[in-house]
Amino acid sequence: MSNTQPFTVGLVQMKCATTPEGGPLTPDPSPQGRGGKLPEDNLAKAEARIEEAARAGADIICLPELFKSHYFCQRTDPAVFDLAEPIPGPTTERFQELAKKLGKVIVASLFERRTSGVYHNTAVVLDADGAFLGVYRKMHIPDDPLYYEKYYFTPGDLGFKTFDTRFGRIGVLVCWDQWFPEGARLTALQGAQVLFYPTAIGWHPREKAEFGTAQHNAWELIQRSHALANGVYVASVNRLGHEGPADAGLQFWGASFVSDPFGGLVAKASHDKEEILLARCDPARIEDVRRNWPFLRDRRIDAYGSLTKRWLSE
Amino acid sequence: MSNTQPFTVGLVQMKCATTPEGGPLTPDPSPQGRGGKLPEDNLAKAEARIEEAARAGADIICLPELFKSHYFCQRTDPAVFDLAEPIPGPTTERFQELAKKLGKVIVASLFERRTSGVYHNTAVVLDADGAFLGVYRKMHIPDDPLYYEKYYFTPGDLGFKTFDTRFGRIGVLVCWDQWFPEGARLTALQGAQVLFYPTAIGWHPREKAEFGTAQHNAWELIQRSHALANGVYVASVNRLGHEGPADAGLQFWGASFVSDPFGGLVAKASHDKEEILLARCDPARIEDVRRNWPFLRDRRIDAYGSLTKRWLSE
Repeated sequence: MSNTQPFTVGLVQMKCATTPEGGPLTPDPSPQGRGGKLPEDNLAKAEARIEEAARAGADIICLPELFKSHYFCQRTDPAVFDLAEPIPGPTTERFQELAKKLGKVIVASLFERRTSGVYHNTAVVLDADGAFLGVYRKMHIPDDPLYYEKYYFTPGDLGFKTFDTRFGRIGVLVCWDQWFPEGARLTALQGAQVLFYPTAIGWHPREKAEFGTAQHNAWELIQRSHALANGVYVASVNRLGHEGPADAGLQFWGASFVSDPFGGLVAKASHDKEEILLARCDPARIEDVRRNWPFLRDRRIDAYGSLTKRWLSE
Repeated sequence: MSNTQPFTVGLVQMKCATTPEGGPLTPDPSPQGRGGKLPEDNLAKAEARIEEAARAGADIICLPELFKSHYFCQRTDPAVFDLAEPIPGPTTERFQELAKKLGKVIVASLFERRTSGVYHNTAVVLDADGAFLGVYRKMHIPDDPLYYEKYYFTPGDLGFKTFDTRFGRIGVLVCWDQWFPEGARLTALQGAQVLFYPTAIGWHPREKAEFGTAQHNAWELIQRSHALANGVYVASVNRLGHEGPADAGLQFWGASFVSDPFGGLVAKASHDKEEILLARCDPARIEDVRRNWPFLRDRRIDAYGSLTKRWLSE
């Protein structure tokens, strides 16, 4: 962790343009090409928001998961694979140009086409000079009602990763990864100063009244716990807005936030507004927290071998 | 996890009798023997509280960490080792008799003398028929201002454990263990339905105004995160009251609590009162949470091998 200078994280909480409310969630088959014009709309919007974040002082700017389209995993449809793209590829290149122009780091979540039949939920990290620093491929893939990700995404095969950017060393994980302390730990142990979690999570409208608050609380709690357990900042950025049929579909809950290395909220966005969320991250705070609560000193690495097992009982 | 019947956890939040306010924290050298009469006072009080918890409906009753004495780790003093005792031994036997008489499970934290020069911070688990089910020896040992535990306690060498009691399968961890997701995970993977954390944690009076709330929040948050990450109940029981010099020493913060398997608080005690805290635990709730948020299905056990490393960077 060589960087010792404070830097500012910028999270782009945005709606992702989708088909008209209640309309189909398949890609637009229009002649503009793969997935139609909506991905281009979302990309242009993301670029504008990144510029806005940079003007507001953000050094490392992160977009929500799969921001280029609606959250297509609500259904299983082979036509959706048309939305995927190679990495590096056209979108990565546009972000490289933008990163260089602004002198800022960009973290973007993309639907990666690696080859026929192998697609990933991937984040790219572009340094402030436009350099392509690499990718993180989502390791933990969910598959639950309206989140049918195992259909689309091959689980990541690159493990947990960090990236040395101009402003600091960062880790990137994606959405469902956030429920797994192991992923946060393995990224923090590589010296990450911030863990970014591009995310697409929302309420099932029919469940929201009964379970909505508990679900959102759980989501925030588990990520703050990663900050605390590891003495790192955590920055989680979610989309918002309703996608899919009005009485079904998903209502993405926004509420992007940044936790400090002791698990305290330092910035938090609303449930219902597009926002640029800024938070200052100070390596000195990481140092201070880890000196006073020295968890990393006391891990029983001699006794953790069975964490590679599925279940330890009958 | 064969047990499917609900059961009630009872946490004994208590002050532990100590030398007069502001007095020395060394063992009482009175002729009553090792550590003087205070350990006997605390033991008798704990027995009475266990009986009270049983009358109130508790099935599995847990005492705070090292309840038989003041929290002696505020100083390093070789005379304190006189407080340690063999396990099984006289205290264990008294609790076995009590467990059998009440038909309840007892979890008690004791200062174990294993041999000359090898002492542990150990929890014993006694079944409802009085059977000695075994011990857990605290694995993660802190050493921080006024918590000089590395001086007294050899780190546990038994690993993380569960115990099959009459009412359910439980795991026991102790205090500092609570900051380590690995310990919670390894215990839950053995089928624990509840993780008990006997604890002695408090505020440094001089720090409380500035950091007290954040410290208590962090403590609760990390343990609730273990419940959530693993889909288990977590029951944390702390002592309370000031021990040591009035302007220094430690103010133990009470606030014992039980979290449900989704990280929600189901019972919480005050910061300043002795209490018996009761909470109903239902294996059906564990089943429900894990079906709806199936984290255990998706752990990337192929990618967790480096959790046995201290640090993964320079």
